[in-house]
Amino acid sequence: MKNKNYYAILMAGGVGSRFWPVSTQDFPKQFHDMLGTGDTLIQRTFDRLEQLIPKENIFILTNAIYADLVFQQLPEVTKRQVVLEPAMRNTAPCILYASLKIQKENPDAVIIVAPSDHWIEDEENFTQNVQQAFSFCESHEVLMTLGIQPTFPNTGFGYIEYDASSKEAIKPVQQFREKPSYELAKSFIRQGNFLWNAGIFLWHVKSVIKAFQSHQPELFELFESGIPFYNTDAEADFIAENYGKSENISVDYAIMEASKNVYVLPAQFDWNDLGTWGSLYDKLDKDHNQNAVVNARILSTDASGNMIRTKADKIIIVDGLKDYIIVDKDEVLLIVPKSKEQDIKKVLQDVKDKFGGHLG
Amino acid sequence: MKNKNYYAILMAGGVGSRFWPVSTQDFPKQFHDMLGTGDTLIQRTFDRLEQLIPKENIFILTNAIYADLVFQQLPEVTKRQVVLEPAMRNTAPCILYASLKIQKENPDAVIIVAPSDHWIEDEENFTQNVQQAFSFCESHEVLMTLGIQPTFPNTGFGYIEYDASSKEAIKPVQQFREKPSYELAKSFIRQGNFLWNAGIFLWHVKSVIKAFQSHQPELFELFESGIPFYNTDAEADFIAENYGKSENISVDYAIMEASKNVYVLPAQFDWNDLGTWGSLYDKLDKDHNQNAVVNARILSTDASGNMIRTKADKIIIVDGLKDYIIVDKDEVLLIVPKSKEQDIKKVLQDVKDKFGGHLG
Repeated sequence: MKNKNYYAILMAGGVGSRFWPVSTQDFPKQFHDMLGTGDTLIQRTFDRLEQLIPKENIFILTNAIYADLVFQQLPEVTKRQVVLEPAMRNTAPCILYASLKIQKENPDAVIIVAPSDHWIEDEENFTQNVQQAFSFCESHEVLMTLGIQPTFPNTGFGYIEYDASSKEAIKPVQQFREKPSYELAKSFIRQGNFLWNAGIFLWHVKSVIKAFQSHQPELFELFESGIPFYNTDAEADFIAENYGKSENISVDYAIMEASKNVYVLPAQFDWNDLGTWGSLYDKLDKDHNQNAVVNARILSTDASGNMIRTKADKIIIVDGLKDYIIVDKDEVLLIVPKSKEQDIKKVLQDVKDKFGGHLG
Repeated sequence: MKNKNYYAILMAGGVGSRFWPVSTQDFPKQFHDMLGTGDTLIQRTFDRLEQLIPKENIFILTNAIYADLVFQQLPEVTKRQVVLEPAMRNTAPCILYASLKIQKENPDAVIIVAPSDHWIEDEENFTQNVQQAFSFCESHEVLMTLGIQPTFPNTGFGYIEYDASSKEAIKPVQQFREKPSYELAKSFIRQGNFLWNAGIFLWHVKSVIKAFQSHQPELFELFESGIPFYNTDAEADFIAENYGKSENISVDYAIMEASKNVYVLPAQFDWNDLGTWGSLYDKLDKDHNQNAVVNARILSTDASGNMIRTKADKIIIVDGLKDYIIVDKDEVLLIVPKSKEQDIKKVLQDVKDKFGGHLG
């Protein structure tokens, strides 16, 4: 019997443009089967959370244009669970809005906020870590996060610095650190009390709302004024009229960095943000030439270390390429070295500039 | 007013498997717009011949399975002009058969036999050379060929050795030489009296039939017995019953190499057999990075010398490839170095062995 106070807010509004041409504005990464397993990333994330959380308590936060994709891919989800942003306003406004809705239906809720497009394979440790954090949130007025043990000085992530002297499993956070330089990242790793910020937050609903009230009073007032309408027929009108007025601000900046009662549990599961084709390559099975192949049937000669994706069953003959990203879609074929994976956002912009705007 | 005795036999039964995956058994090279001009190769060849030859006198020789493609692409052609081989039997049987049909309707015919899938741009010189050869064939009992001035010691073509002492424009042929070794090809070029055999033959209909009668008496008897039925409703039955009995033999071997009255006119037009992706590359316009791009829209970085073909308007982003063949079709993507263009037949075989037979 799952705990009816357990809730999740799945963040599903991003675009993942470094996975272009597969991930596009119209059909972003979280709705694709990036791993070639038969499930899309949001389906896998939903399944993972459902181990612990009643499925009717899993809310999906996304942009209005993705509503159809959500209902197609998660047919067990009802309209009540899909919270649509009428405009892009970063993470703070939509998390506050969803939290007020949840509080109105269950003032005892504890909530995990999690991205819908990350890779976590070890469901058992994940579930156990979330359970442990939920228990802490139920008995303490805190804002929590799960931090990822860094494996190398990645300059693409934010870091969480915790109190090195703490002997507890759940540790007080000293500060959030923005994406560091390489030198700084190396010193973080040397020091040992730094974790990657994976955007996974946990809290009691009253704690997060109190944090917004203290640190973002304007934003709080805006959404507080809607409480009489949430979970009623009048909600849509209120949101359509007011959502656009909210500030464009991240939840990290809005409440986490400003609060004193922030705690972190170092995660005991493997994690990958699937942020680039190269990180996807790392998580996929390889053939005997170290090519990671999704959907395609490959005939290769002197080709190794490549990340290859096509539509289902397409035959690809590759001779002589090493460490390339080869992605074929109906209207676009991308052949670039893995070392340039960070440039794909720029490539997409160049394509839009050169050929017009409908392809991203 | 075109000469009503002028005839052409267009050879359109080949498959062009080195142009796989574009050229396939079901849809061979001659029916594709390989040059990206808007016309298929057979359409361009038909137009070129029509400068000199009445269009109702241009016969298309092809396999029965390509009949629909011929009528689609050459809508002005009637059923009478399309001679269908019910089985693959190389060039001699079908040329003899078509010649007997033509002789029955016009015993004064002079005929050019020409491939349907080659590149010849200079229509004026082509027309003039054909005119000159036709006149010679009308006044002499000869078998003629147009030979191509070699530009390098190509080991992929047969050569025609002519009498170096001849002062005439049209020269007696001494012998046909099969595909030579590289050393031998170099000596041919050094000697100067060697031309490439492009498979372009010209003769009076009575000369070619007499040559078959002399050198291939069995084949001649087989098809001679059908004369009462040709160009009548009974023809199809006769061919269905008898065509398969004919020997599998090329026209070169059947009559040209065996005859003494063979003459060659060195061609005054540029010619390319479009035999491989590399030879197609040579004939296409290049962008400023020396990439030849058919149909695709390209965004390239450090990519040069590539032969690229996709479906219409597909966007391709290529970073770092040099001298590659990149061909994308719906079900197949080929990425191989141009230096391996001769291996594409083998690649096709490997693909069939590994993934099944329907893709060639």
